[in-house]
Amino acid sequence: MSTSSPRFGTAETKAQLEEGTVFAPRFDDRGLIPVVTTEAATGQLLMHAWMNDEALARTIADGTAWYWSRTRNALWHKGDTSGQIQQVVEMRTDCDQDTIWLRVKVAGDGGCCHVGYQSCFYRVIPAGSDGKTLASPDVKKLPPHKHNG
Amino acid sequence: MSTSSPRFGTAETKAQLEEGTVFAPRFDDRGLIPVVTTEAATGQLLMHAWMNDEALARTIADGTAWYWSRTRNALWHKGDTSGQIQQVVEMRTDCDQDTIWLRVKVAGDGGCCHVGYQSCFYRVIPAGSDGKTLASPDVKKLPPHKHNG
Repeated sequence: MSTSSPRFGTAETKAQLEEGTVFAPRFDDRGLIPVVTTEAATGQLLMHAWMNDEALARTIADGTAWYWSRTRNALWHKGDTSGQIQQVVEMRTDCDQDTIWLRVKVAGDGGCCHVGYQSCFYRVIPAGSDGKTLASPDVKKLPPHKHNG
Repeated sequence: MSTSSPRFGTAETKAQLEEGTVFAPRFDDRGLIPVVTTEAATGQLLMHAWMNDEALARTIADGTAWYWSRTRNALWHKGDTSGQIQQVVEMRTDCDQDTIWLRVKVAGDGGCCHVGYQSCFYRVIPAGSDGKTLASPDVKKLPPHKHNG
């Protein structure tokens, strides 16, 4: 269910994977790894996206966020269209190295969501609800511009 | 690539999915949806996990975090073994409703990681590195106890 990439290291044991210092990211059967992106200064969750091995290598190398767009089936340098370039302040991985966490500073208008909100997580699922209704958006919508990237 | 569940609502259009108030979570081809879990008070990223439709329904209903363990192929009431029950302070979904964000208060010793750290994200990927080496853990390791749940 997971694959490694020759671009990165190889963990020989579970202990090495979980407690070592070899970076051995585990991609899923589509060759993708999930990415959690938060705003470095405030900790706000901005978006959840995916990288393939090339997007991950480019992000490490140039210090701005690259993703894999599952919709467009293409590498995606976040901000190229919208100006919302994500400067990486810190990158982390988790215990079993199957997730990436990016803490970023966002250029342009500071947003990230293609719908126009500052964060993609603008709607609450009310606790104890019937599971069919969301609360109305409560995150700032930015003035219109090109939000598709 | 995504499926809905009769437990939740149905979005008829993209606009309804993205800007409406119908909760229509989109599960992947395994029937799972990714979950980002942060500590409500501090905003710290604790873990990245998965839910199936039943875990999501139970989380909404009882206000504590349920996941789907891909390792054990079973529902997983986080904290049942370790005492690290996650009380949900707020649940959100994102623009295209294919991710869940849980903001939680953690019971027990306040940890979440099966390796024993307070957060699963205890290792940094150094910027501009060769992509093969992680920095040593820099997140608090908790005193030993049963961490498998």
